[in-house]
Amino acid sequence: MNKVRIGSVGLGRLGLQHAENIAGRIQHAELTALCDVDAPKLKDAADRLGVPHRFTAFEELIACKDIDAVVLVSPSALHTGQISAAMAAGKHVFSEKPLGVTVAECREAEKAVEAHPELVFMLGFMRRFDESYKYAREKAAAGEIGKPVLFRSYSQDPEKFIAGAIAFAPHSGGQFLDMAVHDIDLARWFTGSEPETVYAIGGCYAHPEFAASKDGDNVSCLMKFKNGCMVFLFAGRTAPHGYNVETEIIGTKGILRIASVPQKNLVEVLDNHGVRRECSENFLERFDTAYVNEVQEFVDCIIRGKKPAVTVYDGTRVSEIAYTCKAAFESGELMKF
Amino acid sequence: MNKVRIGSVGLGRLGLQHAENIAGRIQHAELTALCDVDAPKLKDAADRLGVPHRFTAFEELIACKDIDAVVLVSPSALHTGQISAAMAAGKHVFSEKPLGVTVAECREAEKAVEAHPELVFMLGFMRRFDESYKYAREKAAAGEIGKPVLFRSYSQDPEKFIAGAIAFAPHSGGQFLDMAVHDIDLARWFTGSEPETVYAIGGCYAHPEFAASKDGDNVSCLMKFKNGCMVFLFAGRTAPHGYNVETEIIGTKGILRIASVPQKNLVEVLDNHGVRRECSENFLERFDTAYVNEVQEFVDCIIRGKKPAVTVYDGTRVSEIAYTCKAAFESGELMKF
Amino acid sequence: MNKVRIGSVGLGRLGLQHAENIAGRIQHAELTALCDVDAPKLKDAADRLGVPHRFTAFEELIACKDIDAVVLVSPSALHTGQISAAMAAGKHVFSEKPLGVTVAECREAEKAVEAHPELVFMLGFMRRFDESYKYAREKAAAGEIGKPVLFRSYSQDPEKFIAGAIAFAPHSGGQFLDMAVHDIDLARWFTGSEPETVYAIGGCYAHPEFAASKDGDNVSCLMKFKNGCMVFLFAGRTAPHGYNVETEIIGTKGILRIASVPQKNLVEVLDNHGVRRECSENFLERFDTAYVNEVQEFVDCIIRGKKPAVTVYDGTRVSEIAYTCKAAFESGELMKF
Amino acid sequence: MNKVRIGSVGLGRLGLQHAENIAGRIQHAELTALCDVDAPKLKDAADRLGVPHRFTAFEELIACKDIDAVVLVSPSALHTGQISAAMAAGKHVFSEKPLGVTVAECREAEKAVEAHPELVFMLGFMRRFDESYKYAREKAAAGEIGKPVLFRSYSQDPEKFIAGAIAFAPHSGGQFLDMAVHDIDLARWFTGSEPETVYAIGGCYAHPEFAASKDGDNVSCLMKFKNGCMVFLFAGRTAPHGYNVETEIIGTKGILRIASVPQKNLVEVLDNHGVRRECSENFLERFDTAYVNEVQEFVDCIIRGKKPAVTVYDGTRVSEIAYTCKAAFESGELMKF
Repeated sequence: MNKVRIGSVGLGRLGLQHAENIAGRIQHAELTALCDVDAPKLKDAADRLGVPHRFTAFEELIACKDIDAVVLVSPSALHTGQISAAMAAGKHVFSEKPLGVTVAECREAEKAVEAHPELVFMLGFMRRFDESYKYAREKAAAGEIGKPVLFRSYSQDPEKFIAGAIAFAPHSGGQFLDMAVHDIDLARWFTGSEPETVYAIGGCYAHPEFAASKDGDNVSCLMKFKNGCMVFLFAGRTAPHGYNVETEIIGTKGILRIASVPQKNLVEVLDNHGVRRECSENFLERFDTAYVNEVQEFVDCIIRGKKPAVTVYDGTRVSEIAYTCKAAFESGELMKF
Repeated sequence: MNKVRIGSVGLGRLGLQHAENIAGRIQHAELTALCDVDAPKLKDAADRLGVPHRFTAFEELIACKDIDAVVLVSPSALHTGQISAAMAAGKHVFSEKPLGVTVAECREAEKAVEAHPELVFMLGFMRRFDESYKYAREKAAAGEIGKPVLFRSYSQDPEKFIAGAIAFAPHSGGQFLDMAVHDIDLARWFTGSEPETVYAIGGCYAHPEFAASKDGDNVSCLMKFKNGCMVFLFAGRTAPHGYNVETEIIGTKGILRIASVPQKNLVEVLDNHGVRRECSENFLERFDTAYVNEVQEFVDCIIRGKKPAVTVYDGTRVSEIAYTCKAAFESGELMKF
Repeated sequence: MNKVRIGSVGLGRLGLQHAENIAGRIQHAELTALCDVDAPKLKDAADRLGVPHRFTAFEELIACKDIDAVVLVSPSALHTGQISAAMAAGKHVFSEKPLGVTVAECREAEKAVEAHPELVFMLGFMRRFDESYKYAREKAAAGEIGKPVLFRSYSQDPEKFIAGAIAFAPHSGGQFLDMAVHDIDLARWFTGSEPETVYAIGGCYAHPEFAASKDGDNVSCLMKFKNGCMVFLFAGRTAPHGYNVETEIIGTKGILRIASVPQKNLVEVLDNHGVRRECSENFLERFDTAYVNEVQEFVDCIIRGKKPAVTVYDGTRVSEIAYTCKAAFESGELMKF
Repeated sequence: MNKVRIGSVGLGRLGLQHAENIAGRIQHAELTALCDVDAPKLKDAADRLGVPHRFTAFEELIACKDIDAVVLVSPSALHTGQISAAMAAGKHVFSEKPLGVTVAECREAEKAVEAHPELVFMLGFMRRFDESYKYAREKAAAGEIGKPVLFRSYSQDPEKFIAGAIAFAPHSGGQFLDMAVHDIDLARWFTGSEPETVYAIGGCYAHPEFAASKDGDNVSCLMKFKNGCMVFLFAGRTAPHGYNVETEIIGTKGILRIASVPQKNLVEVLDNHGVRRECSENFLERFDTAYVNEVQEFVDCIIRGKKPAVTVYDGTRVSEIAYTCKAAFESGELMKF
């Protein structure tokens, strides 16, 4: 079995992690090329990981014959263009979220994917590949919790990263697009349904800087889905305890909670603060295995000639919903889908 | 120190519990009279608890000279009238929630209370007297969690009591009035603020019978409070695991969760179902001590000539809010306060 | 039904708590007399609790005609003599543990009890009256965990009370007698069996002062019971997190853990220390209800003319076992019962 | 950087897992050869994993020039001989525990290792490579819990695998050698000390079949270590809830608990059994990552020319201790080291 030769684009924190995963933790794959505009960073990573091809220009990467697939961990604004270009060059594409920074861009990405049915395209909704989320989804799909009544999901970044969040605020698209997209994806995945209405609120509770971007440091929304399920999402940037991603699905016959305590590991500390669990610090720690699993799935799809369960249309749909949430938040009005 | 002589009205489940508590667990009080329309039940309870005075008519009870105070655990529709009559007869009054079944009734109760500043009036928001809620409130009031960002509270009755809930549905006023009033009270108590807007949804996920009363078996609402705090409330009648009342207050500096696992006691069972906690079965079990504490506070206020922290206006305000939530639920529209 | 008139002896921390409980939380009982050698403390408590009779001499208390029963919370060295004297005076007796400070003394207490079959005698093994321990015991007795394999029990006092523990060390009898007696009682209660062998170790890990009393600041023992059950007990005085009393019973079909986290209440705090439960601070907080329940049982036994499940012989047996554990600890040898 | 070419020996459950890990999850390594006496199983695994060399005879494997290192997951009785032969053939060796089935055998292995200082030898104490155990060890080593007072460790296999355990009993060496060796290793690792005395008990609580091998289905021992630390170990084969490996280290300043709930993942289920965590089913699930980490460490040591922290002498010492525990268990006597 030949290995899938991957070129990975972007060497930010997550990009570097993907590069390391492809180099050492993904089966049937090899990290053939790296691409980043920062030449010294590129050299450093490529040397360390023993990557033969290095590019500072994306166009050169996709022109490279030794590459079967690209993994995009580039800035969001570049995603759509890179997806189209890479697929036009005959490469399979794995793109980190978001699919595009506007719905119009997402539609372009759809066209690129539709134009290349022979290629694999996959979007990085890594939570679906987390062992706990997968396990819960299987239970729900097997009917163990009955009909979904309430889906509640939180995405909270730790307060200690607030400086970066403030700096990134003008480009983040706001918390519904930047953070809640993962929860929106989960809500659709778990309920098998789509939103009908949304009411969104929030504000700047600790950091007024977000107001300039029409965002808050903490926001939430309540949606009614077509199947009747209530969906409550909360996204925040000031979590005092760590990186907190938790989800609850209340069904008529059972309830599932995923990561209601964002424990770092299985160690419990008993000291003068009480009995406590230390928490995950960031998404890389929490979703370490999920990031491996999702790229493994991408590679397996390429090898076996199958299509990923997450489609480009999921990417568009999630973006549409997130934009409607954002509009609801900005207007203060109840919005219908 | 003379004991406060109490006449307790109503011998339903909670009424009986209050009677037993007054008879044996409240200091500086004695259960002097019982009142219920069901004569055999009245005799049985009074005999068992050694209560000298028994009445099937409320008017006779309040005419009794040996009584200083009444505890009302009668049907909700009788509350306002009984409050007025009892205070007119010079009795201190403790009334179970709700204050009245309409806001107009609540206003009448306000007048009765205002007309008798020499008497103690107290409303039974027992959660404020639960040790865990009190402890959390003190931490929040001491500034330990910073500014409130999100207040989330659940009230879930177990599925196994669904038959009673269905039978009671036409008279319950709906879940916002019947159950969520406690959460509304807590939201005001913890945030020190009032709602500005509400969006409410829900439905009949398992039991269509509630639709006839314009209610659902599970409902929720998202409110924005004047201080900016987001408030999400959920009330349900189909909890698979037991009686679940839980609250979370996310602040800018810390988060408090009260009873996120509705554990019955401190026993953990490890068997073929995993590692598990068995759950509280009903409100009497969960709030056993709180029911004692609230009546103790009532008695202490009478003895010390002070006024309870919970006022008649809190009762009115909570009812107003619950009615607005109900209207929002029925209309499907965003409502402003 | 007449109330049981109780004279309570000793106004240390636990004595005061018992007095308050009898005055206000025990049904069918009244606190008729208090006795303590410290006259000002006696006056203060008696005034506050409205107690008519006050005695600085135990002999006067038991001579009082208005008293039906005595509750002994006096220094351990006085227990046996007071039990005998009180029963000779026709009083029912509830005594805090230990029954006596030597096995010989326990035998004397047995004689006093045997000489007065018309009177109720009860020993204060309060853990049996804790809701969680009772619940677990019922499950075990119902066969839900199968045959007992391992019984493990911890008694840990918080480090912050170490100064008191060091001061009391010469009179405490050592940790097996002072603390582990409760665990020994539970082991016999849960397993229905008796020890055959014991190996005991420990030492002064933080506080060398205990060595002068041939004690350690932390000790443990492993016992084989006659029914084959393994019993591991641990007692410590340096718990960093609070007052920790926990028990695990591993059976062939299930496992029960009681208070594996010594949580103060149902509040969970999420802050920069992680996700945490604050802990019980001392025995009065942890066993608050149990102290009420045990005296209530004593009173109920008197009223109904029945005998408590805990007998004087249990007191003797537990002392014998604790003394053997102590001897094993001091000798370093394996001992047989 | 050249990859370390590994030949893996033995294709039982753990052997297969190691083979899969080397093939796909270990960086800088490749699975070059497989060896098992079962030819069809060998072909199946080698084909599936794309392994070029296949051997049914161990001698042929170590004669293969394309192999740098061997991983031994063969029957325990073969370990010592294979270690010696492989090192004589110039191969680095990773051996699963135990080092040998007798202490004499362990000494032979020591000689082989001493004779080849240029080669890496490592023993598979995988728990040291579990993220939670590592994290706890670092805290302990950093002094965060003060001086060790009590080290408690459990190893429990689930009841549902009892048939296999009974069949394997005559060859297992008993639970101290078969299971508790891991706990013994952890005790030495965490305390940095060695045992002085041991008292061991246990029996056949559910399955009398183990008696024929002088073993029990559940056993325990209490040891005093030279630094004063108390060490309590429990090993059982009848866990009702799953595969349970948990450890507690009580120090004078803090307490660490590792996996006190053997949770399968981060999902919490709330249903008619209560609020529960489902449990790990077996060692492969629980220590999945640890098995990867330990072989990664072996490979890294080879590449960087360093020696693993776990030495051959640790293997001998743990075996010696386990044999003494076994002797103590069989004799019923207190034994000294």
